[in-house]
Amino acid sequence: MDARLENLDYAFNPRSIAFVGASETLNKWGFLILNNILTGGYEGKVYPVNPGRDTVLGLPAYSSIRDISADIDLAVFCVPPRHVLGAIDDCIGRGIKVGVVVTAGFKELGDDGAELESELLRKGREAGMVMIGPNCQGISCPPNKLYAWMPILFHPPAGKISFISQSGNILNMLIGAAAACGFGASKAISSGNEADLKTEDYLSYLSEDSDTDAIVSYMEGVRDGRTLLERASSVSKKKPIIMLKGGRTQSGISAARSHTGAMAVSERLFEAAAGQAGIIMVHSIEEAGIVASSFINRPLPRGKRVGIITGGGGLGVLAADFCSEQALEIPSLSPSVLSELGRLMPDWWVPGNPVDLVAGLDFNIIKPVIEILMRSGEVDALMFLWIGSPKKREPVDTSRGGQDISGMWEVLRKRFDDYVRELYGLMNELNVPLYISTSLELGEPAADEVSRNEQPMVYPSVESACRAISAMAAYGEYRRRFDTP
Amino acid sequence: MDARLENLDYAFNPRSIAFVGASETLNKWGFLILNNILTGGYEGKVYPVNPGRDTVLGLPAYSSIRDISADIDLAVFCVPPRHVLGAIDDCIGRGIKVGVVVTAGFKELGDDGAELESELLRKGREAGMVMIGPNCQGISCPPNKLYAWMPILFHPPAGKISFISQSGNILNMLIGAAAACGFGASKAISSGNEADLKTEDYLSYLSEDSDTDAIVSYMEGVRDGRTLLERASSVSKKKPIIMLKGGRTQSGISAARSHTGAMAVSERLFEAAAGQAGIIMVHSIEEAGIVASSFINRPLPRGKRVGIITGGGGLGVLAADFCSEQALEIPSLSPSVLSELGRLMPDWWVPGNPVDLVAGLDFNIIKPVIEILMRSGEVDALMFLWIGSPKKREPVDTSRGGQDISGMWEVLRKRFDDYVRELYGLMNELNVPLYISTSLELGEPAADEVSRNEQPMVYPSVESACRAISAMAAYGEYRRRFDTP
Repeated sequence: MDARLENLDYAFNPRSIAFVGASETLNKWGFLILNNILTGGYEGKVYPVNPGRDTVLGLPAYSSIRDISADIDLAVFCVPPRHVLGAIDDCIGRGIKVGVVVTAGFKELGDDGAELESELLRKGREAGMVMIGPNCQGISCPPNKLYAWMPILFHPPAGKISFISQSGNILNMLIGAAAACGFGASKAISSGNEADLKTEDYLSYLSEDSDTDAIVSYMEGVRDGRTLLERASSVSKKKPIIMLKGGRTQSGISAARSHTGAMAVSERLFEAAAGQAGIIMVHSIEEAGIVASSFINRPLPRGKRVGIITGGGGLGVLAADFCSEQALEIPSLSPSVLSELGRLMPDWWVPGNPVDLVAGLDFNIIKPVIEILMRSGEVDALMFLWIGSPKKREPVDTSRGGQDISGMWEVLRKRFDDYVRELYGLMNELNVPLYISTSLELGEPAADEVSRNEQPMVYPSVESACRAISAMAAYGEYRRRFDTP
Repeated sequence: MDARLENLDYAFNPRSIAFVGASETLNKWGFLILNNILTGGYEGKVYPVNPGRDTVLGLPAYSSIRDISADIDLAVFCVPPRHVLGAIDDCIGRGIKVGVVVTAGFKELGDDGAELESELLRKGREAGMVMIGPNCQGISCPPNKLYAWMPILFHPPAGKISFISQSGNILNMLIGAAAACGFGASKAISSGNEADLKTEDYLSYLSEDSDTDAIVSYMEGVRDGRTLLERASSVSKKKPIIMLKGGRTQSGISAARSHTGAMAVSERLFEAAAGQAGIIMVHSIEEAGIVASSFINRPLPRGKRVGIITGGGGLGVLAADFCSEQALEIPSLSPSVLSELGRLMPDWWVPGNPVDLVAGLDFNIIKPVIEILMRSGEVDALMFLWIGSPKKREPVDTSRGGQDISGMWEVLRKRFDDYVRELYGLMNELNVPLYISTSLELGEPAADEVSRNEQPMVYPSVESACRAISAMAAYGEYRRRFDTP
């Protein structure tokens, strides 16, 4: 790894932060970002810089970086473009490792801006800093409770997924999509104009980061496709890169041009090359969140053969369709496996894959069925589709007769959690990945569970589970080409 | 419409129900369904039939239908297969309009079952009833608070979407998917083996139902493709049919065969023919819910040209991509429209479509921008992509400095609701469909709002909004071929 990239350690784990452009004006970035740092739980030193004030948000303010005598690891810049250059001059000789330039008004505004950006880059190098941005939303590192970014009081939970995005808003939404699956973030970078560090640099850095198990990247512009793909190809040998690309169509490219000045690349060529480099291409923010979460705490499938266990016949049919459409296989099971299963099933069971649990969701049957399939060697991944009724939210009216059995739901929820834990235990023991899906709120992580990441996700739809298997099977294939046996 | 189909009025609006197989045993259908009827708010008479009991769930029980002297509109059967035949004999001469046969163990079990099913059909006809099922989960009609089906205490809100499903579980999930969008159900039918009434019959019935604005259908088996498509084609001239088909691939077909004994049809041929018949084919349960909800309280696009207004540049890029991938167009706007917009925008605005609201989400700009585009005649549909930060759920810690500005979120939520209402008002005035999307909980209907259906849905993702526009534009095209100008 490029020695300069090691500076990034100080972006995510700074002992101290100088904040240039600290403000108390509610809708200014200099307020929003500083406020997020202060209220997010960051435990290092924070030095607000504002020449017009004695204090900002309760902290003593400095009129320039020169006035801060203590060591500074990270500097954040929120002042207008021309002032950033002066502020970076102040950093020369200070040993500051990283600058996050939030300020917009550089290359994205045309030739004058591009010239300013070159100067920014030159000065940053002179000061010995690596630079994130300009024209970016900031960075975050939830395990350190560091949230140096714009979105209001957005302090997502810590986890094992890292994010790189050329769009700030999409960064937030990608993190939100993973959080909706119950998974938190390790590092998040809004890369902006990428004057100094580029997506490929962040990929290389995160590849070496022991706290990152999967990387999500949003790209609009590819400046140096060859370098990007070479780096990605080597990162993919260690951990999965899930990439969402904006500018896949003529209309998208033309929109991207006015957004980040992105250059057109042939989408078909890029997708093919990305596949060769082991990159997992996704096509929506939600898909990115689901696929990335799938990799956390779950073994890779050893092939494309999927066993489906379903609580409802129709869902099994849809799952078989989705899997086939995703280039997965639904193999027939051998007579010996079917007869083993048959011994657990009622007489009217029709043997086959999907395994339709016609007897209902009796866990005393579900678990052995899953175990038989995991041990069979006939499937590489298992899907378990849970059905049931949604939670009754209103009080039950028994004035016309009938019984209030709404208490059953809480019992079910508790049982479901236990079952999931037990089944994922089985998965880890036997090393065959399991994908549990339910459309019920059962699968939704309670707010306090989000940050724990104790177990793999529960899928909110059959389709999303199939997509996850397909992505993981393709990635498993890539890895097998390079892993020494 | 076939005169027999008029009997269905009594399925959804019965003055009285005889319930054969009433039970107090918790996991029996005879309990779950009856309990749903009693606790769901149904206001007609209910007559439980159980020869072994004096009362069931607080109501006096009858030993057979013969013992009920009052008029009966609807009979529900939950007794074992052979007993159903006897119970239907008891219905002869009683003027019962509809029988819902929940009981399984007919055609789906092979030749013997098929014979039993023919006899069931014959007896039902003799009794003058139309028959729903057998092997079905039941029916519901939320506007009448009638929930004669299995899923535990599942009493979804009333709305304008009706559902027909050959799978009971998928019926629940389809209704759940629409409810997640904030829309309720008008009529829901689990059609089971379709011994008597078939999907095409329910389509014809719902076509005439003034309380149904959109129809969602899940099919696995197509017995008489020609009749189905002929009927659908004429229904589609009045209201949209959104169809999810199970058995799209070889694996799906083979799973369907053991589920409902469905026959294989070439998926490509079926999809093409369905498109000709105006049917909107969807590929997942979630998509069905979103597309169906989109038709409620929203005008049809007059063409494929989409205007995109976005709070974030990256989202605009993704929206342009999605739209193009869905065969929609993102037209360039004329110089005169761009200059009208430019007068509202800051200097650094880059004119184009998507319209990037670089100035942020200032409603004083958003509304006139949307109005200019709606009046321009240059777009057939408008997409508005809202961005922002998710709600902060934990208390804000200001012990290290900073401000607790979490109150802003509630202000935003309230404002968002007002804006949505105002913007949809504009849509109804100018008759250009608007699709608002946000990934924030802002768009999620509060529980008490679900049943009100006051305004069109807010989309949970950019992609889902694009899919909705595409489906509505295709349907609009179908309708224009038949509507007299």
